[in-house]
Amino acid sequence: MRLIDLLDTSAVEWRALPLEVVHCAEVIGMGEEPTRMVLQKKGSSLVKAVSAVADGQADAIVTAGNSGAALVAGTLLIGRVSGLLRPAIGNFLPTKQGVLFCLDLGANADCKAEHLVQFAIMGHCYATTIAGIKKPRIALLSNGHEPYKGSMVVKEAFGRLTELAELFDVCFVGNIEPRDILNGDIDVLVSDGFTGNIMLKSMQGALQAVSWWLKEEAAASWLNTIGLGLAKSAFTKIKHKTDYARTGGALLLGLTKPVVVAHGCSSAFAIEQALLLAHRAVSDASVELLNTELATWFKATKNSRASSTASIPVRPEFFA
Amino acid sequence: MRLIDLLDTSAVEWRALPLEVVHCAEVIGMGEEPTRMVLQKKGSSLVKAVSAVADGQADAIVTAGNSGAALVAGTLLIGRVSGLLRPAIGNFLPTKQGVLFCLDLGANADCKAEHLVQFAIMGHCYATTIAGIKKPRIALLSNGHEPYKGSMVVKEAFGRLTELAELFDVCFVGNIEPRDILNGDIDVLVSDGFTGNIMLKSMQGALQAVSWWLKEEAAASWLNTIGLGLAKSAFTKIKHKTDYARTGGALLLGLTKPVVVAHGCSSAFAIEQALLLAHRAVSDASVELLNTELATWFKATKNSRASSTASIPVRPEFFA
Repeated sequence: MRLIDLLDTSAVEWRALPLEVVHCAEVIGMGEEPTRMVLQKKGSSLVKAVSAVADGQADAIVTAGNSGAALVAGTLLIGRVSGLLRPAIGNFLPTKQGVLFCLDLGANADCKAEHLVQFAIMGHCYATTIAGIKKPRIALLSNGHEPYKGSMVVKEAFGRLTELAELFDVCFVGNIEPRDILNGDIDVLVSDGFTGNIMLKSMQGALQAVSWWLKEEAAASWLNTIGLGLAKSAFTKIKHKTDYARTGGALLLGLTKPVVVAHGCSSAFAIEQALLLAHRAVSDASVELLNTELATWFKATKNSRASSTASIPVRPEFFA
Repeated sequence: MRLIDLLDTSAVEWRALPLEVVHCAEVIGMGEEPTRMVLQKKGSSLVKAVSAVADGQADAIVTAGNSGAALVAGTLLIGRVSGLLRPAIGNFLPTKQGVLFCLDLGANADCKAEHLVQFAIMGHCYATTIAGIKKPRIALLSNGHEPYKGSMVVKEAFGRLTELAELFDVCFVGNIEPRDILNGDIDVLVSDGFTGNIMLKSMQGALQAVSWWLKEEAAASWLNTIGLGLAKSAFTKIKHKTDYARTGGALLLGLTKPVVVAHGCSSAFAIEQALLLAHRAVSDASVELLNTELATWFKATKNSRASSTASIPVRPEFFA
């Protein structure tokens, strides 16, 4: 059954809305290989939607499908900001004192140090142009705050970011451990997409565990039942604060048009929030604004040692 | 001032205890390069303690110092189990239904797929010989449960572990996302030391944030104050469950003698727990037992494709 027929049967009032439904006969599955599928399945909703934006028929995309395919389609059909190596997924996390902009949260599982430098620049530009932070404090996610801590890539990125901060108006504060990121001492957190995603989902896992354990404790004693019941509003507030659905989706930063990727298990509320994010990105021209800024930065930093593709030396590990 | 003089001045009763104090004139700092320092600073407490165990004058080591240096000294002076490429830090995390053995939690920032295979074998042997789990379910930490998710190393490790499980009596259940690891569906979690450490510290960071937000909510409403006050025992219980100090330290698995690494900011209680862990490892000969098992496994799997140093093909990324 076509979506349009389904809508006509179950919710005919959609015809009064300013919507156009485009029939798509193919599907790119969550487990399918992004590159091949984007090239093959021209009739998929993802490829059709991205093409519509690339052709100027639509202004933005929201997808809760295969995010790897969204990255590939966005890069191939819409294109990247001049000078950008790789788009990244960026989003805010709630902290003790406000919010923190994190990237990459999952677009690029394997990164080189020069990619992390570009993520730092994207984070800097997002924080200044979109969030209005004058001199955002940028930190590199690592397993220790010391400069010599981290994987080889992180150690190399530390050196490059130090050089970037020496030459350009960027505030690099060094490495940060994940247990300190929510303290409110930094504005932008940089990592590869694998580590960023692990960090985010580990936090979600810990919050989930606290929620079970509290339920267990509530069941184990009447005093706890009463106490936790009375404080219910506190838990609701914290749940709201940490609910991914409240941000709904995240922008694929560095593409020339707004592409919002939402979680595969998004609720209707999360999809609504993702649509609103895409709408804002278009109506206030924030993606355009960001991209102009990014292009300037990539041009300015292009010949710096921080952005060069030649690797810079780092302290070797015992096992190497 | 020498430690022995300090003890005589402030706690002379130590002389009644079965302790021997060895004076160490050098220190390996937390920020110093492990390999060079271990080779140079023969008079440091770390090198002296590890040498004492290597020579049979002592049975185990507990250190809250430079863990990289402990790894290097342990490897060079004590030695690894035959066939082992790299020792790993392993420890238990509390889950919804019990505990989960995780490794590597920080010894090896950069790993290859064949190292992760050995970590899985170490996890299997630890869970069977020490924790008495008959057929431990082993999972690989990744940013998605699908086989094609993860960094290149994780994807390659997935293939190797699948082969290992086909040929040997090992239960590999696939990839797991960090938000699912505490559900109680797995017994052993395998990752490189960088990612494992990021996961652990992200969870600690999230728990810390919940604790602040609850305090904030308690201060904001009298109902919350009373409720959270009544349920105080529930929070204390959860805090105990998730307190790193209660395990105190973790074994450097794969060294031929017990080496326990504790956190650099360990409390007296955490050090006590670490000492008890080292004591148990010696008194019940668990490290010996584990190592015998490990040597057998490494020998048996040595020529398998899972353990070979030749890389096995994985699905490439769009940006590679």
